[in-house]
Amino acid sequence: MLNASPDLRLQIEATPALHPRHGSRSSPIAGVVLTGGDVDAVAGLLHLRERHCFSVYAPERVLAVMNENPIFGVLAPDCVARVVVPLDRPMPLAGPAGDSGLAVEAYAVPGKVPLYQEGADFDPTPSEAGDTIGLKVTETATGNSFHFVPGCAVVNGRLRERLADSALVFFDGTLWQDDEMIRMGIGAKTGRRMGHISMSGSDGAIAAFADLGVKRRVFMHINNSNPVLLSDSPERREAEAAGWEIAYDGMEVML
Amino acid sequence: MLNASPDLRLQIEATPALHPRHGSRSSPIAGVVLTGGDVDAVAGLLHLRERHCFSVYAPERVLAVMNENPIFGVLAPDCVARVVVPLDRPMPLAGPAGDSGLAVEAYAVPGKVPLYQEGADFDPTPSEAGDTIGLKVTETATGNSFHFVPGCAVVNGRLRERLADSALVFFDGTLWQDDEMIRMGIGAKTGRRMGHISMSGSDGAIAAFADLGVKRRVFMHINNSNPVLLSDSPERREAEAAGWEIAYDGMEVML
Repeated sequence: MLNASPDLRLQIEATPALHPRHGSRSSPIAGVVLTGGDVDAVAGLLHLRERHCFSVYAPERVLAVMNENPIFGVLAPDCVARVVVPLDRPMPLAGPAGDSGLAVEAYAVPGKVPLYQEGADFDPTPSEAGDTIGLKVTETATGNSFHFVPGCAVVNGRLRERLADSALVFFDGTLWQDDEMIRMGIGAKTGRRMGHISMSGSDGAIAAFADLGVKRRVFMHINNSNPVLLSDSPERREAEAAGWEIAYDGMEVML
Repeated sequence: MLNASPDLRLQIEATPALHPRHGSRSSPIAGVVLTGGDVDAVAGLLHLRERHCFSVYAPERVLAVMNENPIFGVLAPDCVARVVVPLDRPMPLAGPAGDSGLAVEAYAVPGKVPLYQEGADFDPTPSEAGDTIGLKVTETATGNSFHFVPGCAVVNGRLRERLADSALVFFDGTLWQDDEMIRMGIGAKTGRRMGHISMSGSDGAIAAFADLGVKRRVFMHINNSNPVLLSDSPERREAEAAGWEIAYDGMEVML
């Protein structure tokens, strides 16, 4: 079972048979895969219970964030493994009792460095340097897979090829419209400036996925300014009419 | 009005007249005073809204944690001031429109360095080096004041002198009994090892405060293993009979 919630990070649960819950402080989290170094992706690690043992998987540039910030030492080094995930190559994930039965392939998507790494000369042009990644998660036994892309600035040709004809894609749904935070008077940045494609418009995610053949499409990582969150909004109707689902806390998806 | 919640940090609100709430993203937080560098004291800073302008006050050794962890750069430097608070000397706190009307005096209490700074040769003997501090908060106009001490390993003579005859003290209520986490099988550490005095026993906080003349005593920073959290427990009755209140989320205290 994969529990894909719209919150901070993908939590990959091994099957219950491999990972019984026990005692009053056990946790089903056996591994955390980081898709970026921004606070919304990494700060949750600081809130896990002391000496809860698991593995953190992240590409080199993202793992560097943990290494550069001593506060992540609360994840006891003798207990929490930090594992570099290669790009463009599937990697098996460990479970509490050996192999988890899952493999993850990380790939760079157009994005940017974390907010706190933006220097004075920061260039907001989307880059594919590996600061922002997408994941393809595969169940080894069946070959069933899905994609998880919580942050993405542009759906370019490379990403289109990768996602085409997938059974399931969770995708960046930060804003409905690029300038909605400015128009609402709640922020000075466009979605583009923040490294996020918008849902609507001719260069938006809904249009980009229209002919990709993805069977199930789920928007997640949705900003609270996005009207698609309102179940009775015209924007929600438009997204759903285009074949999208809107993720919600506690959502469970079976492949 | 001072809103003292049992959670991560003391949030000091200026009077509503000085700090009107406005717009859909305003926040009443004008300043945050850090009493230690542990995750429970500082991680909340990472969850504040981007470009929310306020001041972080902390003694030098605690502020060093922010400076050593670049992730705290999410608090935009042109917007969030980092102010060193001296020890043993009252310091006025800024409000959104000049002086807040509050002053804070920080003082070292027996404690330890943050968990992630404990090296292999860590000595758990309580130290007063300034890694763990208590606060005396004073309303300048009236001279009314209270103490806020969320972490404290021992109530020694210096601290007794400081707290004696206070109108109000919020105090470390982590554990009821030093070895309760071990006995419950949910942890390997005593309270003493974690830098926390327990509530009960001859060397506990209840006994230490018995003859201090503190008018109002509130336990906060209460671990979820502490039976005092249960409103019908014998331990709750014992604490209340000794004149203590148990803090709860949203608690408001008027001086």
